[in-house]
Amino acid sequence: MEIIGERINGMFKDIREAIQNQDKTAVQEWAIKQTENGATWLDVNTGASAVDQFATMKWLVNTIQEVVDTPLSLDSTNYDVIEEGLKLCKRPALINSCHADRYKIERVFPMAIKYHAKVIGLAMSEESGIPKNADSRVALAMELVAAADEFGLPFEDLYIDPLILPVNVAQDHAVEAMETIRQVKLLSDPSPKTVVGLSNVSQRCSNRKLINRTMLTMLMACGLDAAIADANDDDLLDAAATASIIMNKEIYCDSYVDLFKSNKY
Amino acid sequence: MEIIGERINGMFKDIREAIQNQDKTAVQEWAIKQTENGATWLDVNTGASAVDQFATMKWLVNTIQEVVDTPLSLDSTNYDVIEEGLKLCKRPALINSCHADRYKIERVFPMAIKYHAKVIGLAMSEESGIPKNADSRVALAMELVAAADEFGLPFEDLYIDPLILPVNVAQDHAVEAMETIRQVKLLSDPSPKTVVGLSNVSQRCSNRKLINRTMLTMLMACGLDAAIADANDDDLLDAAATASIIMNKEIYCDSYVDLFKSNKY
Repeated sequence: MEIIGERINGMFKDIREAIQNQDKTAVQEWAIKQTENGATWLDVNTGASAVDQFATMKWLVNTIQEVVDTPLSLDSTNYDVIEEGLKLCKRPALINSCHADRYKIERVFPMAIKYHAKVIGLAMSEESGIPKNADSRVALAMELVAAADEFGLPFEDLYIDPLILPVNVAQDHAVEAMETIRQVKLLSDPSPKTVVGLSNVSQRCSNRKLINRTMLTMLMACGLDAAIADANDDDLLDAAATASIIMNKEIYCDSYVDLFKSNKY
Repeated sequence: MEIIGERINGMFKDIREAIQNQDKTAVQEWAIKQTENGATWLDVNTGASAVDQFATMKWLVNTIQEVVDTPLSLDSTNYDVIEEGLKLCKRPALINSCHADRYKIERVFPMAIKYHAKVIGLAMSEESGIPKNADSRVALAMELVAAADEFGLPFEDLYIDPLILPVNVAQDHAVEAMETIRQVKLLSDPSPKTVVGLSNVSQRCSNRKLINRTMLTMLMACGLDAAIADANDDDLLDAAATASIIMNKEIYCDSYVDLFKSNKY
């Protein structure tokens, strides 16, 4: 199970201020804290308020790489900004993200191949928005998989995101997301990977952490491979470690939780 | 989600002593405590050490029914002992359990119909033991479903148990149990219900409660309807409540956890 630490994002106040003041402290602290608690990737999002998105992405990538060598997930709606980050990444990165629109695929997939990066492909398009049911999401996922084949992106470098909506406003979507993941894992062999932006399920809910970790284990039962999530939520990591054992992805031992958090598996 | 409280079982020291001394205190305390925390059923198991299984079953049923009207799950390998209990139950009971062997089905299913009881049907037989893979378990489940049709037991009164083994000794079985549940829910419409003896997954493991609640939510993602479990494990009940919300089985509200535990849904 790959955890993509969500914390280095300009939407959080401390990161926004760090960017404004060009103060590396908070960014580097979160880079280390997330890595030490088991993050496989670190998401890097400049936030909407950054004045110069290009300069900010470059500063964040360099600032993080001064203290950890954890691979980065470059998170922006502007692909040129992502490319500036890709040029600096010391390890193959994850591009977060690409809609299932042809013109976006044509921009992103060749860029991924050029920089040996992986891609989060969203099971939605500008035209359709987020489909209501699993079948429509799987159809969009299949377009991404077919494009991966066409452009030469290995299937296992494509992470399909079925899109998670808050359970308090779109309660019928969670089962559709689960079914999408189940079907995507059957699409091909090797199959694409699957990923979700987990915290979205509990937006404006009570019991946020409880909902997050419950949703994570249920998605893992359907074949989920990765989640953008709070890597410093210990209960979430404990649940992810346990679900990995139950899915027989990691070998049980009495200290499996510690091994999972230290990325020792 | 139906929680079948596991605590009134002669294998626990306090219940065993209560039976030996014919002291109602512990039995009635657990009947109340489990009911108050959200148990839908109370499992009643005399334990192997009870000298007179018939008298003990009758004493337990009467003792429990003096203080709660929660329906009972009568748990014995001796069907005549179960029948003694069924005669006393004020509300329709659950028979725990019946293997998929023809001679057992012929004994149990007519008894269930006579007493308006439901039946836990195990996806195993004396001949096969616990099958290694999902397909073989589903085949046995189908025999139970076909028998329900033949004897006139409503499908929704049959609870198929895919059998859960400890994850530290049979790590590859958990995914087979999940797949069994998924397939059983597709067997017919209306489908049989599904149930597991949850605590078995974590026998002799570290992190028992963490493993139990993680397994429960993963099974619920596959369509699990009921679990024999520790109804007084608050974290387990919280997880069950949350998974019910995510599965869109109960309507989200900010106090959904409290509603679930009070059986108010």
